[in-house]
Amino acid sequence: MERRGFLQTSFAVAAAGLAPVTALRLPRRRLMRRPDTAPVPAKSPIRLSSNENPLGLSDAARTAIAEGLDEANRYPGEWRRRLVAALATKHQVKPEQIVLGNGSTEVLQMVVQSAGADATVIVADPTFEDVPRYAERIGVRVEKVPLASGYTHDLTRMQDIAARAAGPVLVYLCNPNNPTGTLTPAADVDRWIASAPERVTFAVDEAYFEYASGPSYWSAQKWIETHPNVMVVRTFSKIYAMAGMRLGYAIGHPAAAERLERFSAGNNANQLALAAGLASLGDDAFAQKSLAVNREGLQALYRCLEELDLEYLPSQTNFVMHRIHGDLATYNARMREHGILVGRPFPPMLAFSRVSVGLPEEMRVFTEALRSFRQQGWV
Amino acid sequence: MERRGFLQTSFAVAAAGLAPVTALRLPRRRLMRRPDTAPVPAKSPIRLSSNENPLGLSDAARTAIAEGLDEANRYPGEWRRRLVAALATKHQVKPEQIVLGNGSTEVLQMVVQSAGADATVIVADPTFEDVPRYAERIGVRVEKVPLASGYTHDLTRMQDIAARAAGPVLVYLCNPNNPTGTLTPAADVDRWIASAPERVTFAVDEAYFEYASGPSYWSAQKWIETHPNVMVVRTFSKIYAMAGMRLGYAIGHPAAAERLERFSAGNNANQLALAAGLASLGDDAFAQKSLAVNREGLQALYRCLEELDLEYLPSQTNFVMHRIHGDLATYNARMREHGILVGRPFPPMLAFSRVSVGLPEEMRVFTEALRSFRQQGWV
Repeated sequence: MERRGFLQTSFAVAAAGLAPVTALRLPRRRLMRRPDTAPVPAKSPIRLSSNENPLGLSDAARTAIAEGLDEANRYPGEWRRRLVAALATKHQVKPEQIVLGNGSTEVLQMVVQSAGADATVIVADPTFEDVPRYAERIGVRVEKVPLASGYTHDLTRMQDIAARAAGPVLVYLCNPNNPTGTLTPAADVDRWIASAPERVTFAVDEAYFEYASGPSYWSAQKWIETHPNVMVVRTFSKIYAMAGMRLGYAIGHPAAAERLERFSAGNNANQLALAAGLASLGDDAFAQKSLAVNREGLQALYRCLEELDLEYLPSQTNFVMHRIHGDLATYNARMREHGILVGRPFPPMLAFSRVSVGLPEEMRVFTEALRSFRQQGWV
Repeated sequence: MERRGFLQTSFAVAAAGLAPVTALRLPRRRLMRRPDTAPVPAKSPIRLSSNENPLGLSDAARTAIAEGLDEANRYPGEWRRRLVAALATKHQVKPEQIVLGNGSTEVLQMVVQSAGADATVIVADPTFEDVPRYAERIGVRVEKVPLASGYTHDLTRMQDIAARAAGPVLVYLCNPNNPTGTLTPAADVDRWIASAPERVTFAVDEAYFEYASGPSYWSAQKWIETHPNVMVVRTFSKIYAMAGMRLGYAIGHPAAAERLERFSAGNNANQLALAAGLASLGDDAFAQKSLAVNREGLQALYRCLEELDLEYLPSQTNFVMHRIHGDLATYNARMREHGILVGRPFPPMLAFSRVSVGLPEEMRVFTEALRSFRQQGWV
C-alpha cells in the first residue's frame, strides 16, 4: 500500500485523532448518572450483553481502515493473501492451513456443514449457541451434554456419546467456555484427542484465548499438524475489538482447511476488516490494554458480587456469569430500564446472568445499579 | 446515529474530502504513459478485470464509514435492522422478504445449498461462475447450457432439461449475463416462471440491474409475492462501488427468505458495509454518476473496437466482451505487462476478452494499448 499524497495522509491523521472521541463519548452518555435517577434514553444503553471489547477499534485499525477506503470498491483478494500470510507467520503454519471467515461464526458454520448430514454434533450445555443452531437448522443431530462440576466440559460423558454414535461425530469445545467463562483443562482435551478415532472431529473454539491464563490451559493448535480431525477457531472480535468488522479464522491441517473451504462463501472477509486485522495483529500494545481494562473490570465486578454475596464463576474471559435472585427476565428488563444491557438467558443456567466487562466507568454504573437492586430486594 | 461533537464532524469532513484523492491518484499511476514505453510497476496495474466500479466509494459511504467507526467493536444487529428496513421500503416488500448476504455471492451460496443435495442446477455457459462452483464443490449436479444466438439464455433448452430432471431443479439466470453483458428478454423469463412447476426454483441474479435498459428488460421481482420459488439477487458491489465491503441481498417471498436464511452465516454483513449501504441507497446522484462514467467508458471502448474491427457484444453492464485475435493467455499476459488487468478466461468463449469499464483516463490507456497491439499484429 503506497500512501497517496497529502490528502490521504491528513485523512489518516484525522482517523488516528479519533481515539479521544471514544473517551469523549462517555460523559455524553451520562455514565456517571446515579442508577436511581431517570433511566438513560433507550437509544444509548451501556452494552454489557455481547462480550464486546469496550475499547473500540484500535488506532492502528482505524488508520488502516482510513488508508484502505480508496480500495473498498475493489474485490479484496490481495488483502486476503496478506492477512493469511500474516496469520500463518503468527501461528507458524503454512498459508493453506488458515481458513478465513466472516467472523469466526462463519467458520463454525463451515465446521458444522463439513461434518455432513449424518453427523452427530456433541456440545456442552450451556455453551456458545452457534454450533448447535447451525446444526439444528439443517437437521443435523445435536447431543447436549451438561457441564461437569466446576463448569468444565464433561469430557467423559461426551466421549461416551461419541463412542456410541453411528457415523461421523463433531465435538465442539468452546475453551474457555461461553457463557460460563470457565476452562476445561487442556490436558484432558489432549487425552481425548490423542485416543479418538478418525471419525471424531474436534472444533476447539478459542475465541477468548488471549484472556485465559494459568498452567492448565493451552491452545489445541499443537494437534493440527498431525491430526486433520482437529480445527482451532479464533476471532478478531474480542481481543482486537472488531466484532462489527466480522473477521475470524480456523487453523488446521491442510486437509482440514480444504474440507472447510468447500463451505466458505467467496471473498468472505471484507477489505476493511482485512486491513484492520492486519494492523491489529501487529498491535501488542492494544492487546495489552484490552487485557488491562478487562482485569480492572473483572476486579470491580468480583468486589461487588462478593459484597452482595452473589455467587459468580471466576472468569478466564471478558465476561462473568453470576447468580441473581429472582426471575431472570425481570432482572434483564430492570437493567434495561436503567440503561444497561446484560446477557441473554442461557438455559439451563437461568439463575445466572452473564455480564460483559465494560470500561471502568461502565462497570461503576453497573455495580451501582446492582447494589441499588439489592437495596430494593430485587437480587 | 447522533453526531458526536466537533472531532467526529471534522473526521467526517476529512472523509468527504477524500473524493479528490481518487482523481489525484490517476496521474500518480502514470495513466497517460504511452503503452509502448516501459510497463508500469506490477504493484499498481489498472484493474479492468473484475467489473468493479472505478469511481471508488461515494462520499456518502465514506462519511457513513467514518461515522460508524466508533461502533465497529459492536455486533451490528441494529445496523442490519436499519438496512433491511430501507431495502424493504426501496423494493416495497416486508422486511422478512429481504435476506442479507456477505456480498451477493453468499446469497448465491445459500441458494445452492437450499436447493438440496439431490437438486439439478441449470446454468448458462458461460455465466457467472459462483453458482456452478458452489454446487460442484458440494457434489450437486450441474447442467451447463450454451447461450443461444444473440448470447441470450437458451431458455427452451434449459426448460427441457428441467422437465426431464428427477427431483428439485434450481435455475440460475444471470440477467444481464456476466461475462457477456447481454440481456435475456424478461418476457421469455416470465413465460417460463409462469408455467414452471413448484419443484423448479429460479434465482435471478440482477447484479447489473441498474446498468441495463431498454423495453425488453425488467426485474423478476414481480413474481416474488406469488411465487416462493423465485428469488431475486442484488448487490452493492457494482452501482454503489462497494465490492470490497461485501454486501448483497435476496428479495423473495417470506417462505423463500426463510429457506435461504437456514444457510446464512450469523451477522453476515459487516457494520461498516451496512452503514455504507444505507448511505448509498439514498445517494441517487452517485448512482447517476456511475452510469454516466460507464456510458462514457462504453462509448470509448466501442469506438476503439469498431475502429479495429474487433467484434464486441453491446453491453447492458459495466463491461464489454470483445473478440481478440490470437491466444487469450498471451493477450492477458501482454496487457498485464502494459500495466492493465483484463478479465479471466471464460470458456468456451476463449476468442473473447472481457474488459471492465474504468475511468475515462483508464479507458484511454486501455484503448491506446489495444491499438498498439494491433500495430504489432497481436490482436
